[in-house]
Amino acid sequence: RVNGERLWQTLRTFATFGATPAGGVTRLALSAEDRQGRDTLCHWATEAGFHCEIDEIGNQFIRRPGRNPQLAAVMTGSHGDSQPLGGNYDGIYGVLAGLEVLRTLNERGIETERDLLLVNWTNEEGARFAPAMLASGVWTGVFSREYALARRDGDGISVDEALRAIGYRGTAAARAIPLHACFELHIEQGPILEETGIDVGIVRAAMGQRWFEITLTGFAAHAGTTPMDLRQDALCGFAEVALAVERIGRQFADDGRATVGMAQLTPNSRNVVPGRVFFTVEFRHPDANALDRMEAALHAALATLGERRLTVSAGKIFDYAPIAFDPGCVAHIEHAAGALGLTQRSMVSGAGHDACYLNRVAPTAMIFIPCEKGISHNEAENILPAWSTNGADLLLHTLLAAANE
Amino acid sequence: RVNGERLWQTLRTFATFGATPAGGVTRLALSAEDRQGRDTLCHWATEAGFHCEIDEIGNQFIRRPGRNPQLAAVMTGSHGDSQPLGGNYDGIYGVLAGLEVLRTLNERGIETERDLLLVNWTNEEGARFAPAMLASGVWTGVFSREYALARRDGDGISVDEALRAIGYRGTAAARAIPLHACFELHIEQGPILEETGIDVGIVRAAMGQRWFEITLTGFAAHAGTTPMDLRQDALCGFAEVALAVERIGRQFADDGRATVGMAQLTPNSRNVVPGRVFFTVEFRHPDANALDRMEAALHAALATLGERRLTVSAGKIFDYAPIAFDPGCVAHIEHAAGALGLTQRSMVSGAGHDACYLNRVAPTAMIFIPCEKGISHNEAENILPAWSTNGADLLLHTLLAAANE
Ligand SMILES: NC(=O)NCCC(=O)O
Ligand SMILES: NC(=O)NCCC(=O)O
Repeated sequence: RVNGERLWQTLRTFATFGATPAGGVTRLALSAEDRQGRDTLCHWATEAGFHCEIDEIGNQFIRRPGRNPQLAAVMTGSHGDSQPLGGNYDGIYGVLAGLEVLRTLNERGIETERDLLLVNWTNEEGARFAPAMLASGVWTGVFSREYALARRDGDGISVDEALRAIGYRGTAAARAIPLHACFELHIEQGPILEETGIDVGIVRAAMGQRWFEITLTGFAAHAGTTPMDLRQDALCGFAEVALAVERIGRQFADDGRATVGMAQLTPNSRNVVPGRVFFTVEFRHPDANALDRMEAALHAALATLGERRLTVSAGKIFDYAPIAFDPGCVAHIEHAAGALGLTQRSMVSGAGHDACYLNRVAPTAMIFIPCEKGISHNEAENILPAWSTNGADLLLHTLLAAANE
Repeated sequence: RVNGERLWQTLRTFATFGATPAGGVTRLALSAEDRQGRDTLCHWATEAGFHCEIDEIGNQFIRRPGRNPQLAAVMTGSHGDSQPLGGNYDGIYGVLAGLEVLRTLNERGIETERDLLLVNWTNEEGARFAPAMLASGVWTGVFSREYALARRDGDGISVDEALRAIGYRGTAAARAIPLHACFELHIEQGPILEETGIDVGIVRAAMGQRWFEITLTGFAAHAGTTPMDLRQDALCGFAEVALAVERIGRQFADDGRATVGMAQLTPNSRNVVPGRVFFTVEFRHPDANALDRMEAALHAALATLGERRLTVSAGKIFDYAPIAFDPGCVAHIEHAAGALGLTQRSMVSGAGHDACYLNRVAPTAMIFIPCEKGISHNEAENILPAWSTNGADLLLHTLLAAANE
């Protein structure tokens, strides 16, 4: 068993990096706060006798050698970045639980056949740089290195510039190596485990996602002198689309999700009819056909804006198919949970995770622990220390089983 | 007659302060660009032999003494601030035409009975600091000095701090002095004069305005894990209100205007259901009863949000009644326009102007010149040199008549 109290302490320490007044964190990818977190992780790894390697897209790798270096390694990890006004556990819990597993193995002098590889992936959230899972996407060959390094945040700063600014533009190639298996531990970010009183979720699949960027361009005009019928009001067009997106999501309930999360008005002044709105739309569904229909419905909604005399420019920037995790990895987790006496259930993730991309290059599965009321991407996100310990224990036993086979 | 070419040159020079790539200006009140403009105006006034006085809210006053110092002065002026991505003439045209009038009088050695007082009012636009006409409002007793100095921009910087930062926190009291008459020259910001081929508009009245700040608070949630029916999506509620505001404006066409010009989402991240939207609403109408009904309709729209489980907080931050300008001042302008052979028509302003507040403390009226296609609060705002000259000539003769009576 892991040292649950020590794990909790590392989580509390990490939560100070980017802490917000309301108890959450804003630790955007490659920000100064993310650097603090990365430096601390390196420091802890070094204290525990490990070396921390940085690749060209800033991913951090900590390797615990096994007895048999020619065997493919077993990987675990997650991400240290957060949403703006995000929670204390989304992502970083999986990284620090992995560190706790390594520390426990060291203390107990437990050797494994295969190497264990702990990773902190860059920019999983897709908040500062879109899309999500950008760096695990590069590592697994979904995105080119050039594409990822050139992505820009809202201030026009590229991933490449941001990596250099915090000293995390490493030299190692961001390219998958042979892996025997991969396991990501994460908070559920939904209410099911807590509501049903079940200890852990074993994730067999994840919904597909499609992300869009849309710009509506009308004509900025004086709010006092421009009659209503002469306006080309980009905001009113946007409002129609936002409500259409919500209707699309409701049509595909319970499994579908449709969200407008971000919008930027130009010039965004009280007495100016908005001339332009840039906004995002995202759809999720476990079924790719349903995603096709949601996407078609979005285009239909954009087509009805005609009378408003707006120019519509829409691009799909992220399209990731629903995935099924590896049954062998799922079985490993089920078995370990049974041995530990943890109650379990099989789940489908509505959130995207680095593991979804890892699944393309290695047999992969995920473990979920409950989170209070399912709240995530919110400063109020919370877990209990006992849940944290359960997840880390389960990760420990799962990794041991996989690393010794 | 004024020197139209010289006036045009000062306008072109001024347009470099805050110039945008698309040919407009972003010269927000009390910004570094506004300071450049203010310094240049002071410099030009000093060159012409005048002194430039700054009051405690940053208003700039340039006085040309008359023969009879005990008589009340005649005032003219407008504002040098702009909208974000605004035009080259809104406001500053009236200030620089006033300067051209003073220069012309000097050159010709023309004396007046009364002093002429040229003003550059602080923060007319209401873009950086809401509400509009803030400093003329203080000068005329509508707002207290304390209220105005404490207004904050979107970054939390107060008017007081911004004044100090650019060195324009003067010491003279911002309090009206006795005035014989006041005339503001401005571009129309609407299409009527150009469309009808009329040289100048003589403004007899201005619409009333009501400005609101509204915050809708729901609950920020994960876009992938939060089912549609569990969401408290502040953006979708906002979208409903924005469309309701547009419908209200259409109900009150042709005279009514209803605009949502600004909105800020929190956290404004692609994969987060928006937890909060702060936005503004403004209504305009020449009839106060109509404004009452528009306001009631807004509250009715907010009341229908009930099912969305959002908290609504709405405040009215600006309520300014429709006004009628002084018939005597209007007659002065009409007479001067006739003498100059300019075609004219009587108009109602949909925009607010410093003159609307001056009207409370002195007999006041306004002159409009055409602007291309009525475009304003837009980088594409444009006027022709001939229009500019017409307006300044008319201002010259109007001021002469008033200052000699
Ligand atoms: N787990 C998580 O919140 N990932 C961010 C990407 C997504 O929105 O699915
Ligand atoms: N003239 C002008 O654009 N004033 C700004 C205040 C308003 O929006 O009416």
